[in-house]
Amino acid sequence: MDLEETARKIESMDIRGAAKIARAAASALKSFAMDYDGSDIKQFRDELKMAASRLISTRPTAVSLRNAVSIVLKGADSAEDLVMARKNIATRAEEFITNSEKALNTIAEIGSKRIKENDILLTHCNSSAALSTIIKAHKDGKNIEVYATESRPKRQGYITIRQLVDEGVPTTLIVDSAVRHVMPNVDLVIVGADTVASNGDVINKIGTSQIALCAHEARVPVMVCAETYKFSAETLTGEIVKIEERDVNEIVRQKDFPKVRIFNPVFDVTPPEYVDVIVTEKGVISPYAAYEIIKSLNSDS
Amino acid sequence: MDLEETARKIESMDIRGAAKIARAAASALKSFAMDYDGSDIKQFRDELKMAASRLISTRPTAVSLRNAVSIVLKGADSAEDLVMARKNIATRAEEFITNSEKALNTIAEIGSKRIKENDILLTHCNSSAALSTIIKAHKDGKNIEVYATESRPKRQGYITIRQLVDEGVPTTLIVDSAVRHVMPNVDLVIVGADTVASNGDVINKIGTSQIALCAHEARVPVMVCAETYKFSAETLTGEIVKIEERDVNEIVRQKDFPKVRIFNPVFDVTPPEYVDVIVTEKGVISPYAAYEIIKSLNSDS
Amino acid sequence: MDLEETARKIESMDIRGAAKIARAAASALKSFAMDYDGSDIKQFRDELKMAASRLISTRPTAVSLRNAVSIVLKGADSAEDLVMARKNIATRAEEFITNSEKALNTIAEIGSKRIKENDILLTHCNSSAALSTIIKAHKDGKNIEVYATESRPKRQGYITIRQLVDEGVPTTLIVDSAVRHVMPNVDLVIVGADTVASNGDVINKIGTSQIALCAHEARVPVMVCAETYKFSAETLTGEIVKIEERDVNEIVRQKDFPKVRIFNPVFDVTPPEYVDVIVTEKGVISPYAAYEIIKSLNSDS
Amino acid sequence: MDLEETARKIESMDIRGAAKIARAAASALKSFAMDYDGSDIKQFRDELKMAASRLISTRPTAVSLRNAVSIVLKGADSAEDLVMARKNIATRAEEFITNSEKALNTIAEIGSKRIKENDILLTHCNSSAALSTIIKAHKDGKNIEVYATESRPKRQGYITIRQLVDEGVPTTLIVDSAVRHVMPNVDLVIVGADTVASNGDVINKIGTSQIALCAHEARVPVMVCAETYKFSAETLTGEIVKIEERDVNEIVRQKDFPKVRIFNPVFDVTPPEYVDVIVTEKGVISPYAAYEIIKSLNSDS
Amino acid sequence: MDLEETARKIESMDIRGAAKIARAAASALKSFAMDYDGSDIKQFRDELKMAASRLISTRPTAVSLRNAVSIVLKGADSAEDLVMARKNIATRAEEFITNSEKALNTIAEIGSKRIKENDILLTHCNSSAALSTIIKAHKDGKNIEVYATESRPKRQGYITIRQLVDEGVPTTLIVDSAVRHVMPNVDLVIVGADTVASNGDVINKIGTSQIALCAHEARVPVMVCAETYKFSAETLTGEIVKIEERDVNEIVRQKDFPKVRIFNPVFDVTPPEYVDVIVTEKGVISPYAAYEIIKSLNSDS
Amino acid sequence: MDLEETARKIESMDIRGAAKIARAAASALKSFAMDYDGSDIKQFRDELKMAASRLISTRPTAVSLRNAVSIVLKGADSAEDLVMARKNIATRAEEFITNSEKALNTIAEIGSKRIKENDILLTHCNSSAALSTIIKAHKDGKNIEVYATESRPKRQGYITIRQLVDEGVPTTLIVDSAVRHVMPNVDLVIVGADTVASNGDVINKIGTSQIALCAHEARVPVMVCAETYKFSAETLTGEIVKIEERDVNEIVRQKDFPKVRIFNPVFDVTPPEYVDVIVTEKGVISPYAAYEIIKSLNSDS
Repeated sequence: MDLEETARKIESMDIRGAAKIARAAASALKSFAMDYDGSDIKQFRDELKMAASRLISTRPTAVSLRNAVSIVLKGADSAEDLVMARKNIATRAEEFITNSEKALNTIAEIGSKRIKENDILLTHCNSSAALSTIIKAHKDGKNIEVYATESRPKRQGYITIRQLVDEGVPTTLIVDSAVRHVMPNVDLVIVGADTVASNGDVINKIGTSQIALCAHEARVPVMVCAETYKFSAETLTGEIVKIEERDVNEIVRQKDFPKVRIFNPVFDVTPPEYVDVIVTEKGVISPYAAYEIIKSLNSDS
Repeated sequence: MDLEETARKIESMDIRGAAKIARAAASALKSFAMDYDGSDIKQFRDELKMAASRLISTRPTAVSLRNAVSIVLKGADSAEDLVMARKNIATRAEEFITNSEKALNTIAEIGSKRIKENDILLTHCNSSAALSTIIKAHKDGKNIEVYATESRPKRQGYITIRQLVDEGVPTTLIVDSAVRHVMPNVDLVIVGADTVASNGDVINKIGTSQIALCAHEARVPVMVCAETYKFSAETLTGEIVKIEERDVNEIVRQKDFPKVRIFNPVFDVTPPEYVDVIVTEKGVISPYAAYEIIKSLNSDS
Repeated sequence: MDLEETARKIESMDIRGAAKIARAAASALKSFAMDYDGSDIKQFRDELKMAASRLISTRPTAVSLRNAVSIVLKGADSAEDLVMARKNIATRAEEFITNSEKALNTIAEIGSKRIKENDILLTHCNSSAALSTIIKAHKDGKNIEVYATESRPKRQGYITIRQLVDEGVPTTLIVDSAVRHVMPNVDLVIVGADTVASNGDVINKIGTSQIALCAHEARVPVMVCAETYKFSAETLTGEIVKIEERDVNEIVRQKDFPKVRIFNPVFDVTPPEYVDVIVTEKGVISPYAAYEIIKSLNSDS
Repeated sequence: MDLEETARKIESMDIRGAAKIARAAASALKSFAMDYDGSDIKQFRDELKMAASRLISTRPTAVSLRNAVSIVLKGADSAEDLVMARKNIATRAEEFITNSEKALNTIAEIGSKRIKENDILLTHCNSSAALSTIIKAHKDGKNIEVYATESRPKRQGYITIRQLVDEGVPTTLIVDSAVRHVMPNVDLVIVGADTVASNGDVINKIGTSQIALCAHEARVPVMVCAETYKFSAETLTGEIVKIEERDVNEIVRQKDFPKVRIFNPVFDVTPPEYVDVIVTEKGVISPYAAYEIIKSLNSDS
Repeated sequence: MDLEETARKIESMDIRGAAKIARAAASALKSFAMDYDGSDIKQFRDELKMAASRLISTRPTAVSLRNAVSIVLKGADSAEDLVMARKNIATRAEEFITNSEKALNTIAEIGSKRIKENDILLTHCNSSAALSTIIKAHKDGKNIEVYATESRPKRQGYITIRQLVDEGVPTTLIVDSAVRHVMPNVDLVIVGADTVASNGDVINKIGTSQIALCAHEARVPVMVCAETYKFSAETLTGEIVKIEERDVNEIVRQKDFPKVRIFNPVFDVTPPEYVDVIVTEKGVISPYAAYEIIKSLNSDS
Repeated sequence: MDLEETARKIESMDIRGAAKIARAAASALKSFAMDYDGSDIKQFRDELKMAASRLISTRPTAVSLRNAVSIVLKGADSAEDLVMARKNIATRAEEFITNSEKALNTIAEIGSKRIKENDILLTHCNSSAALSTIIKAHKDGKNIEVYATESRPKRQGYITIRQLVDEGVPTTLIVDSAVRHVMPNVDLVIVGADTVASNGDVINKIGTSQIALCAHEARVPVMVCAETYKFSAETLTGEIVKIEERDVNEIVRQKDFPKVRIFNPVFDVTPPEYVDVIVTEKGVISPYAAYEIIKSLNSDS
């Protein structure tokens, strides 16, 4: 799959989910580097940058995408010649993908310990990190059940319920509006994150923040599963995470309601006070430790 | 439209909404009485009771339906002969319908005074009382805007947005999950009620309670518009308002997800602490005054 | 049992619980009237008043005791002669006792409808009204479980757990400090009341208010079961319900800790915002309807 | 003092405070009636109405003023001739003034019982009902202290502190911004009310609502002292209590800050959830009982 | 005292309190090492490990015990021969004990600065760190008073009140249920901690969390005093702090209530939102800084 | 301006604001060092210390003042001779001033990104950091409006409104009591800080904490702008930030109210739970990251 194809699939949401997008972009940069048939390192760098821009443009507000691209791109910085530059890009892309998958496993390992026998969980949308954690607990022999929301407008809940019942996890589908009604039965809310800001705000699929609010109202803990490359260093310098708005026809055909404004924000912001823990591959933290994570990322990379 | 036809339309939700169901039932009882061609008052009373039971069975948890039927049925109690009994039933049915419509107008009149110039409102589902109130404010020349939720699974929000834009009210459609995200822009939440319990609980379309919670979190007042025949005297004697569950295929086809449990509750319970006022045809009250209203209803009828 | 004996048993808490104290006092006044062997109605009234004072002095802060005595005493007011006065006192005492028992049954009948299949309840101290309600639900075939607190210092929880297991209700004993720890498992808190004030405050066994707070924090409803003679008309005119302090040796022997102050308040005040419903024999109300109840009591008696 | 003079003094706030304004208006109507030298009852009624309008126009948002005028005006309705009409007006005005003063005393009597030995109170602005209550407790020999706010812009706090120290009550003056800072020392907040709405909202001097919020945050009870003629029947029919805006030069001279907008609202709205009790001459109620009070007023008058 | 004796005393709670257990275990390991009369370092290490396991088994959920044992055990890792290994164990044990005591003093020094003249404190159970802090403030000449809870079931409050009155601190004993009732008089809650989790959860004696909730409701700050070896690195990797359950006969004799389930959890979890500061020997921190402390511990040791 | 003159102007509040005071003190120390005409380094150090003490005594509770003085003073520590010592002091003073101004710009740069088009802001008192941030957003072309409080007793709001309208920012002045009333119109609260404590408490101008409370109640974010030299390392070791009390005549002339106690605290404490972000020159953090900042300051300097 070449870079443009990857870009298009991210745009159309055939490739979806912060982690999958990030890995697809890394993979596309690797392909780009491997397939490059020019001979000039400067030109390579320029074209690589354009390729990177193209990828970022597909979901311009996705921090994991930007983080992935930025990590891979550094491979070309220090390279002395084109061969090394192409090889570095490929290596970094592979490493990113490997680390990303390893992080997912670590999160599942860590997070699943916080799921207790007979827990009834609730999840929203379709997060790899959240579902891996749930499935790990199930595979460890814990007797659990899951409520999954439909997750309008794109109904990613359908993917979630398929994955869960395929693994044998007893699963109940509800509409997004039924969350507060079922909350008294829920023991733990588990969701993913698109972005974590330096003050601990969690940006995730639209609806997450009202689920977290309903959980907080009922003293139900909220566990966010998020790889550290979803933590946004840009928020440290004041950037507000821009909430992407997608095509309103995802909700209903505009032409059927010509005079109605349709508003389709993809994410919302859950304040840290409604999140008990974020499970990262570095461990279980309070959302207020986001500044710590971002600082350590900066010093790592 | 004969009684059985009315009953079926209520079952299928072709006739929808607490007030419309109540009036349709009253009307059906009137038709039943007018069309009755027997000659025995005792037999009339027995068949009338069966007719009433048939109507109530269509939405067994709808308090307004039960209240309407019960008010009309009293017409046969004191009648001395069949002619008078049939006439009484017809008269009471007409009165109920007239009073119900008058109540709607009074609520719109009263409630619209609480809508201020430049207010941005948010409504859920499709409540006659709430929409009449909004439209009254608009017709009084107030510059207002409305956010309307989709209201899954039946998407009554589509009816709402059509009604509002047909009246010229600027309207924005959102998915149910986007409520907390838009709440900082909202000045007033206006919803209807299916039932009001003696302690002030408001039972309304699934999702209402999390909207009220989001409003309360943001200090946005919540106004419930409800005719007094939606106040449930049965809750005074301990009955819990049973939350109707409807066909799960309203959400998604069960056969497409054979191993998934689908849960489709129609209503939820909003506690009185999240409701600022209930506007009834008797005036603006706190939800905690529900006991008062129920007591006065008992002494009225 | 003569009046003085009754008075002493109330003082020593051999007769305990707002309802039992009230009935015992009514019964003692009846005995006093029946046994009276004087011949002067004026003298009878004077001695009756002294008898009443003696009874009230045993638990001077108990509103149900004062209400019972006051209701019975009215029997002597309008009587024309001594025979009638003695008879009236006896009749009113019997009526009070009968009504009190009937109220208990009505509360159990009403309140038990609010207990759902598989509910896990939590109760505190040893309230006839609360336990009757729980046992009624159990006898109706509902599968329920109960957490009961020890209720230091007098450990009335021991009586409660005996009553519950004797009825076959699965029961778990916890210390008072464990309430917040078990609250996530609890579906409904059921307690009695010593007094209900005109603004809705519920005065009950020390510890009730922190249980209600823990319930509110976890969105667990709190149901108070209270006969209407526990509503205090005196609070309407500004009286603050005085919190009785009992012998500190109920907690620990003072002589073992000579330099320590020991503080033994018997009751505390639960604000109405933490109480979902009060179940009275007049129906299910919000605590904020207390003013209503008190007004209707005044006009009834 | 003739009617126009009274009207001007109300406008200039030489006559201030909901109760004083109401009594002054009643008194002015009495003078108007007594001094009337026409001979036609119809003309009298017309001029009386104009006089009433003039009085109401001085503080058009003051419910106690409107209530007072409306109560007095009824005196002319049923009168058969001019003599009787003038006499009725005078009588009703006197009665209103007497009842108003009696209500103040009753409130002080009732409310002061809720002040406990060693209580530290906090009050805002200069409310007769609140101060009478505080001074009654002091005169009853209770050892109390009071924090009084400055109450910008008109600094009615200066009047308050003079009245309190003149009575010998230890008093501390703070700026309005220092309320939350001193709240941990406070045992009870006592304020008056300009208006009480049918849902329990308390409209009072600007700043009251944030004091109540600070009190609620610190579990300090808030007691509102308000005669029942401050309860607004108009709110029952949907009227929103209009918040009066006064001359901005009360804050600072506009000409000193020509480009700055100055906003000078006189009142704000305290939601009932932050008010523990309202003390009226009819007793201690929850703010949620406002509907009850308003209904009883309508049936009384 | 040999290792087995120490182990038994920890099991029986003759040695109690997280800090004392930790020091006793360190001391027992030192004795074990000093008394060891074998000659093989490998065998020494094996037996040492068994000794460590025995100690840990006494209170398997106590993080301070595990931390102490783990710190001491490292002494054998790098030792080249048996002599050095035994000596290292002894040295590390002594250091642990010294550091633990120094930490206690530092905490008392730091924490006592946050106690103000005339403060009324409330403490629960019997925490060395909390009591040292209180006594330090008292010795510094501050006029303070303390409410101490009974702390059922083991009534460690009796030890607390003896220690406090022996030091001359005015102390009042209350039952655990009376906490919310006295909270309006309290200026500061001071408790210890058994464990602090990586997200800031404080695990401490059963009842602590509802005390913290009551404090938070009344805007009373909660200060936790905890040495950093009570911070659990294991929680970082997902372990949930297991709440120890002890013999139910600590509450009441099971045989007296054969059909009753008795539940005796020793600890509960206070969420960080109810804790204002944790005072450690490293300084005053927010509970949300727990991740920081755990990371620095890992890099220290 | 010599040191004594600077000291006096700080005392009289002619020089006001945490940042300005800090820079003035640094500048005064520089002047002191440059003007020093002695010849003995030891004596220089002694006199320097006295000069420093004099400066600190002017506002003994101002952490930025102490931090500035302490940073500059270090210049004399390592100097080998008097020449170098004087030069070092001058250099460090200049650096402090430069860094302080740079920090202000960085904060404005970062913080202004969080202000959105059409935002309505509210600010309190007169904070350079907050105003720079607001003005930066305005200069970036964002359409914003500002509510500014009067800020009794010193009315620093007058300075604020002048600065804002001079820059062309539409500004509305309100009294301090009107904050909760206007809060529903506000999108963002922006204030400065006098001190930030190690647990995240923000100490700022009296009134800030109730503004933050009102904002939190209405889900309006609170942004604190504070240079890192306002973070207090002393709070880490237990010091409580002492709240300065100033001359009561700032509020009203004591002699006009001889029997009234007047209380004039200058600052109050806003708990971190009401603060969404602190913008420092090191980035956007949660207030709970204060410990991090303080630790990094210690290691920096």
